[in-house]
Amino acid sequence: MSQAHAYAAQSPTTDLAPWTLERRPVGPHDVQIDIHYCGVCHSDLHQIRNEWFPGIFPMVPGHEIVGRITQVGDHVRNFKVGELAGVGCLVDSCQECANCEADLEQYCLDGNTQTYNNLDRQGRPTYGGYSTSIVVREEFVLHVSDKLNLAAVAPLLCAGITTYSPLRHWNIGPGHKVAVVGLGGLGHMAVKFAVAFGAEVTVLSTSPSKEADAKALGAHHFVATSDKDQTKAVRGSFDFILDTVSAEHDMNMYLSLLKTDGSLVLVGVPTEPLKVQPFSIIGGRKTLAGSSIGGIKETQEMLDFCAEHNITSDIELIDIKDVTAAYERMVKGDVRYRFVIDIATLK
Amino acid sequence: MSQAHAYAAQSPTTDLAPWTLERRPVGPHDVQIDIHYCGVCHSDLHQIRNEWFPGIFPMVPGHEIVGRITQVGDHVRNFKVGELAGVGCLVDSCQECANCEADLEQYCLDGNTQTYNNLDRQGRPTYGGYSTSIVVREEFVLHVSDKLNLAAVAPLLCAGITTYSPLRHWNIGPGHKVAVVGLGGLGHMAVKFAVAFGAEVTVLSTSPSKEADAKALGAHHFVATSDKDQTKAVRGSFDFILDTVSAEHDMNMYLSLLKTDGSLVLVGVPTEPLKVQPFSIIGGRKTLAGSSIGGIKETQEMLDFCAEHNITSDIELIDIKDVTAAYERMVKGDVRYRFVIDIATLK
Repeated sequence: MSQAHAYAAQSPTTDLAPWTLERRPVGPHDVQIDIHYCGVCHSDLHQIRNEWFPGIFPMVPGHEIVGRITQVGDHVRNFKVGELAGVGCLVDSCQECANCEADLEQYCLDGNTQTYNNLDRQGRPTYGGYSTSIVVREEFVLHVSDKLNLAAVAPLLCAGITTYSPLRHWNIGPGHKVAVVGLGGLGHMAVKFAVAFGAEVTVLSTSPSKEADAKALGAHHFVATSDKDQTKAVRGSFDFILDTVSAEHDMNMYLSLLKTDGSLVLVGVPTEPLKVQPFSIIGGRKTLAGSSIGGIKETQEMLDFCAEHNITSDIELIDIKDVTAAYERMVKGDVRYRFVIDIATLK
Repeated sequence: MSQAHAYAAQSPTTDLAPWTLERRPVGPHDVQIDIHYCGVCHSDLHQIRNEWFPGIFPMVPGHEIVGRITQVGDHVRNFKVGELAGVGCLVDSCQECANCEADLEQYCLDGNTQTYNNLDRQGRPTYGGYSTSIVVREEFVLHVSDKLNLAAVAPLLCAGITTYSPLRHWNIGPGHKVAVVGLGGLGHMAVKFAVAFGAEVTVLSTSPSKEADAKALGAHHFVATSDKDQTKAVRGSFDFILDTVSAEHDMNMYLSLLKTDGSLVLVGVPTEPLKVQPFSIIGGRKTLAGSSIGGIKETQEMLDFCAEHNITSDIELIDIKDVTAAYERMVKGDVRYRFVIDIATLK
């Protein structure tokens, strides 16, 4: 057992505050990581506020974790003390079902174990990366390149893989017209990946002020969805729309922008049901699909792709004591594009 | 010009009643058909009641038309007087756009011309198959085999192609577990096609009484969705669900029955928006898609497949004067499985 300093919510109605937790002893297949940085994901706030489902409290959020390995178990062969490492949304799964066998641990049929706000396979609560250290079985630890800015790598572990995976699964590349809905933590990564894969990329945003930012990130076009003439001009024009917005929005308008046989894939998680008009999908044989993060193998592939193509997240580094203020700014969309906590401020 | 006897709704609040209409003169590329039978589609009722959109009145419904050719234009090469022929939901399209070029006239980018309740490309209202004759350009006329019961072929022109097309598009065949939601006009054809394509087929129905019927149609399994234990037992088990129901129903329950990466395809058209929980598609990377009838080339392929495999619709032949009573039974699901009007009763 080892102690870790952390920030925890004691209930759905209290702000995050200092707390101390025990990490489990390092088992033969475990890796212990000294956390350097942890990204702030919109889902952290959804979960400490019980907006999706009743949570497990005290709750230590954080699933965009990077740091340096301080200890490895006797049987660990793939990781060494002193190396950089990352942990994303998953820390375990059954590793036996058809989905785990297919490297889709995120869809483990026995239920995966999430990095926080979950019970592990021994029934113990999991605590996330707003903390000084973590112990994770090696199959769920990622190699992190030392070529990239480490703080800016952290958001790749959730925002990165969540957008990389569907773009890969739907085979997005040259010749595809892709739209990204929302230019936040997920959206800005979606733009970077879709551009890197060779697609023609349009950002759809309610904020006309984001046009310059979208273009700076590599987007070829920008549509302010608050302007009906602009959206009308792109009706029926996209092969693929990646929807990163977790606030309520009009799915039928976005579906109308797809070509025949086009797909809109949801990666943001609105709290209310989507209201889909049947004719929005029947006319044009359109697809509305969802995608959740990615498997461990694909997450490693994404991190390697980022190292090779020099892709990281655009971040604002914050002190842990400013995390509640950062949440308030995140809700307003006032962040370019991901807050990352400097865990040194917790030590 | 030629006169046709017909049944028409004069307004959204009046029942169908006898009416006489003029069919256009047979142009050089036109085929004139003496209608023998016309199927009764649920969409006929939706449209005469203005349940989807404001209609064009007087309205003569009917888009499951079979009969015998009585005249062909000078330039018609593919059809001869005296042959059997069919007409489905479409009578024209631009024939130039990318979708028409790809044999997807149902998704014509310039808007297709529907068999009734539409304006043709000269701005004249179209009138459907509850009538004694019709004149249609040859590209939208189908060859009908004389090996099959002609009355039972009529529903193939809409119910048949509407279910055949998505099963083909999603490549359903041996090794696939397919569920068909609803055992009505569309559902019973979906069962016949999915079985013919080699899939393992389950019927999902709110009416436990339909089990024997489902099995008689070739379904391998039956699940009464009114029984929570039965639906729970098939959670996560289907590769593909074809949803033929046009009444409001719980999409999230049906999505929960899909495997990871499974697809639910809507071909029924509920009048209210579908309420889709984001987690219902994000968990398991599931697809909700829609599909509308099929193109002309595929409709001919379907008719040829039916002739080869001896597939027709199970029908109840009715007199035209009983069509309003038939609508009332159709709304209650009291038909096995498609009413077809004997147009001889209109002559």
